[in-house]
Amino acid sequence: MRPVEGTGPIVTLTTDFGYADHFAGVMKGVILTICPQARIVDITHEVPAYSITVGAFVVGETYRHFPSSTVHLAVVDPGVGSSRRPILIEAAGQFFVGPDNGIFGVVLQRERSTVRELTVRSYWAEAPSHTFHGRDIFAPVAAHLAAGTSAAQFGPIIEDALRSAAVIPVQTSRRGWTGEVVQVDRFGNLISNFHIDAFPHLWDKRFTFVIGMAQLEGLAEHYASRETGELMLIVGSSGYLEVAANQSSAAKQLGCGVGSPIEITFWKD
Amino acid sequence: MRPVEGTGPIVTLTTDFGYADHFAGVMKGVILTICPQARIVDITHEVPAYSITVGAFVVGETYRHFPSSTVHLAVVDPGVGSSRRPILIEAAGQFFVGPDNGIFGVVLQRERSTVRELTVRSYWAEAPSHTFHGRDIFAPVAAHLAAGTSAAQFGPIIEDALRSAAVIPVQTSRRGWTGEVVQVDRFGNLISNFHIDAFPHLWDKRFTFVIGMAQLEGLAEHYASRETGELMLIVGSSGYLEVAANQSSAAKQLGCGVGSPIEITFWKD
Amino acid sequence: MRPVEGTGPIVTLTTDFGYADHFAGVMKGVILTICPQARIVDITHEVPAYSITVGAFVVGETYRHFPSSTVHLAVVDPGVGSSRRPILIEAAGQFFVGPDNGIFGVVLQRERSTVRELTVRSYWAEAPSHTFHGRDIFAPVAAHLAAGTSAAQFGPIIEDALRSAAVIPVQTSRRGWTGEVVQVDRFGNLISNFHIDAFPHLWDKRFTFVIGMAQLEGLAEHYASRETGELMLIVGSSGYLEVAANQSSAAKQLGCGVGSPIEITFWKD
Repeated sequence: MRPVEGTGPIVTLTTDFGYADHFAGVMKGVILTICPQARIVDITHEVPAYSITVGAFVVGETYRHFPSSTVHLAVVDPGVGSSRRPILIEAAGQFFVGPDNGIFGVVLQRERSTVRELTVRSYWAEAPSHTFHGRDIFAPVAAHLAAGTSAAQFGPIIEDALRSAAVIPVQTSRRGWTGEVVQVDRFGNLISNFHIDAFPHLWDKRFTFVIGMAQLEGLAEHYASRETGELMLIVGSSGYLEVAANQSSAAKQLGCGVGSPIEITFWKD
Repeated sequence: MRPVEGTGPIVTLTTDFGYADHFAGVMKGVILTICPQARIVDITHEVPAYSITVGAFVVGETYRHFPSSTVHLAVVDPGVGSSRRPILIEAAGQFFVGPDNGIFGVVLQRERSTVRELTVRSYWAEAPSHTFHGRDIFAPVAAHLAAGTSAAQFGPIIEDALRSAAVIPVQTSRRGWTGEVVQVDRFGNLISNFHIDAFPHLWDKRFTFVIGMAQLEGLAEHYASRETGELMLIVGSSGYLEVAANQSSAAKQLGCGVGSPIEITFWKD
Repeated sequence: MRPVEGTGPIVTLTTDFGYADHFAGVMKGVILTICPQARIVDITHEVPAYSITVGAFVVGETYRHFPSSTVHLAVVDPGVGSSRRPILIEAAGQFFVGPDNGIFGVVLQRERSTVRELTVRSYWAEAPSHTFHGRDIFAPVAAHLAAGTSAAQFGPIIEDALRSAAVIPVQTSRRGWTGEVVQVDRFGNLISNFHIDAFPHLWDKRFTFVIGMAQLEGLAEHYASRETGELMLIVGSSGYLEVAANQSSAAKQLGCGVGSPIEITFWKD
């Protein structure tokens, strides 16, 4: 950990704890007690409850924009207290701390990584609870890491960390693919799992895209390039094909959400 | 930028990105990568989607309470990717970065200011997206500014930045005025566009105020000075006349919201 | 105030202002203007509007996890502008600033404390409003305290600060107790006022617990130890007995919420 002189190490928080309860605040206190120099950055506490998929998407979208040595703490943890392992990942020059349940699946699929099981209890709270490892295991480990303890101190390397079952489009015919909606953002944009890097011929615009009752063709340049409320396809800021509607919710218009199926048929091979 | 010794420059965030998505977190990462000393302060990410009016109200209410040299980053940007300009404002000893769409309208109406169009692309992300200028233009510029780059480096001065069409009360008869609700706060208080500085004779209490089905007279001193649920008029903490109800939502009681019309008739000239 | 070298004093915020309005942002600006070194930590701004009980619960759950000298600013203040006093508490090596309305009730019941009424107006904003003491009294006092002003400067010691009427279980028969739900968390877990320290024989599991239409026996180890959706009793991370349902909302299943009655009958004396 060598942050810029005069600045403290960064610890980000991504959880499904919500903003109303005391949980996130408690974790912040634990971190600042162990590592007073830490600078805590809220990513979101509104991952849908128990949604590892959305948590993995958020972690995957954010970490690349943070400086090296950032510690990303992510807790969406329906299996807390069971035998699922607590882990620490080194990847892309950064650190990731949380449960081994797929929440770091995007990172693990994308980056070369070293994964360790957290086993050294001297870095945990005494007598950890069965229901709040965010407070008792993950926050203390993240804070010790931010304070300079080297990753190797926390536990042994493991090779079988859960890479979440990535939901990727499936080819269903010579020119046809089936995918699905993986996230709906605040504006009601339906983010699909078709990424422009995997489907560069989407740029040619010669395809038909079917979702719900809508059949769409072509790509818009930006949201404001269509009439208010008009549905459009757009390559979103993360590279995924989105269904959007200018200043309106595509999700509401179509009655679609996470998991809604999508079919793309290319007009030529 | 001369922050107090031992402290970093402050960058505030006001957006309509919501708290659930990754957008605000991504912007924080971009800022901290470019300006590791920055101290990021969330104002709100819950400006109603696309509501430039409410965004301008929030920016207008907050900036005056921040220290000089603060950088205020505000992104409510329905026209992202279109020809609306990205701008940087110097006003009141502080900086404002965001789209030229009226979101800084209150600041521009109230303060002497210098406005620049952001044109120098070396301060932006490479290959900015068409849909997320918060990440690709505004956050990088705010961070470079916080890190010490002088405002003049970012682009030329312009004179025609959008001052939003301020919604101000209109005189409709010798003693009558029509205004409207410009914000509903969390408690259901209906904030009007009658400001006590423009209408100091409201203090005399000799007027009739009509909104929805209610006719109100006089001013209350504070919320708790009336019975629970009783409607009252009060000069709010920002100087605007509000319709409130003690420990209850005036908005729900009256079925009113942003845009609801208000009529005030003064009893004497 | 002796924070770790190179770090600034911590000021936490717990309010019912919500995340959409400008109120919390304004308080942050006021604090950073008076105490530029302050490090502001959001606990929550989503205490239910006017709910002193929930505010007191959140403050009680969080402060113990923060370092000494932390300043906790808590504003749930239905009586703002009335005669309720503004106070400053020293307890557990930390500071608490807010209204004297019971929001610090858990702290006052649990810790040895010194309470002062805030009377020295030179530490307040000039001409404080009647409706936003968070901005005009509490934030300035918290900031001056964080900046090093000693507690005694702010006003005289008082002995009669409001300890909220703690809702504790009542014995109704030789082996029977009645309690209630004091908080529902984001996951729909119903947190009761039966604390394991006061009822250690709950560990024996020989009791019947009745809430709504449900009759429960025994304790689960952790949420994942039962089938999805199955109701269970668990000793939560704070030591309170909770009704939970694995990856499901116990509150929705039972139609229960804050204030719902609970009966426990022990099988033996």
